[in-house]
Amino acid sequence: MNPLPVIIGLDTYLGDTEKAARLAEETCSLVRGFKIGLPNLLANPNDWKRPRKACEPALLVADLKLADIGYTMKLVSSHVVEWADAVIAHAFPGVKGALDELKEYLDGLGKKLVLVVAMSNPGAQETMDPMLDKLVEIASRIGAWGIVAPATRPHLITRARQLYHGVVLAPGIGAQGAKPGTAIKAGADYEIIGRTITSSHNPLETLTRLATHYK
Amino acid sequence: MNPLPVIIGLDTYLGDTEKAARLAEETCSLVRGFKIGLPNLLANPNDWKRPRKACEPALLVADLKLADIGYTMKLVSSHVVEWADAVIAHAFPGVKGALDELKEYLDGLGKKLVLVVAMSNPGAQETMDPMLDKLVEIASRIGAWGIVAPATRPHLITRARQLYHGVVLAPGIGAQGAKPGTAIKAGADYEIIGRTITSSHNPLETLTRLATHYK
Repeated sequence: MNPLPVIIGLDTYLGDTEKAARLAEETCSLVRGFKIGLPNLLANPNDWKRPRKACEPALLVADLKLADIGYTMKLVSSHVVEWADAVIAHAFPGVKGALDELKEYLDGLGKKLVLVVAMSNPGAQETMDPMLDKLVEIASRIGAWGIVAPATRPHLITRARQLYHGVVLAPGIGAQGAKPGTAIKAGADYEIIGRTITSSHNPLETLTRLATHYK
Repeated sequence: MNPLPVIIGLDTYLGDTEKAARLAEETCSLVRGFKIGLPNLLANPNDWKRPRKACEPALLVADLKLADIGYTMKLVSSHVVEWADAVIAHAFPGVKGALDELKEYLDGLGKKLVLVVAMSNPGAQETMDPMLDKLVEIASRIGAWGIVAPATRPHLITRARQLYHGVVLAPGIGAQGAKPGTAIKAGADYEIIGRTITSSHNPLETLTRLATHYK
């Protein structure tokens, strides 16, 4: 089986890097990567080199959802660059004094920057959705490697895809309501799937079942 | 000397809770509280009960700059509620499925919610500034205890103050360029001062010198 266009979100593992390493080893050839978020990092800021070693080809994404001035975003990123290939920040803090500094820092280390341009929760409709074009334009302007747009509202993915030439990552599959495959159809490159896989008694079987949605 | 309307930002301490506790003890009667950010928490997620005990009357603010769905913001907050009195999140993710869930969670624990409505870096002018009224309105709607608006652009504080009846916290004093006292004059309740104090060889003397700006 070819790798699915799936990144596994490990948020429920809460710092259990051994469990993460086991899943990474087991699913290594089946997915594109793993997303490790703040709940994991606060539970255990170290030791994330274990899943890194368990699946070398995988893209390891540190989902920090950074939204601060450049100085602070760099300080926070410095805790993950040893094992992470990519760091997720928000586009909405803007370029000057924020994303410009973070981008320069990550570039210097050969790490990828991924920017959130839209969110999966309904409340984002009144705040972020009207800003979508602007936030995607910021991602293009600073040369972000990728953007994040939600599978729960696929028209945002389609619009972002029209405007943006990098990689589009889509969370919101499964527990948050979107069906596997729908974000790819809307224009995303990778779907981020968390609880559906991490809460499964048999992640391999779950992935095999998911594969039918990506044909 | 009465306490100054100052919250000390401890970001440069990078997890050194002993240093934080010493500073908290030393400055306890002179300031309103301390802000502990993500760089500190990733360097050392535990042990923040030490500064908590060193200055019981202080307001301990966990500056998480949360900007995620409710589920994840609650998971992240759960790591700090043992010692923090308040948690900082962004207003930007909106209410439904995000801030509503976080607010309910913090209310249940008797903790305060503080929302960022504007940022100090110049890049925020093209993204967040046009949204100021909407973001303040969200803070009012969900009953946030406080908001954060930048001392570097005091007209945003003045506008937020007109719209909002809670507490206004202003970062950006010192290293980021704004002069002590300017945010209070513009309408803020507390100024957040970091490096000016934490990088000082004599924080007490620095605070005494700062006091002249708050008369």
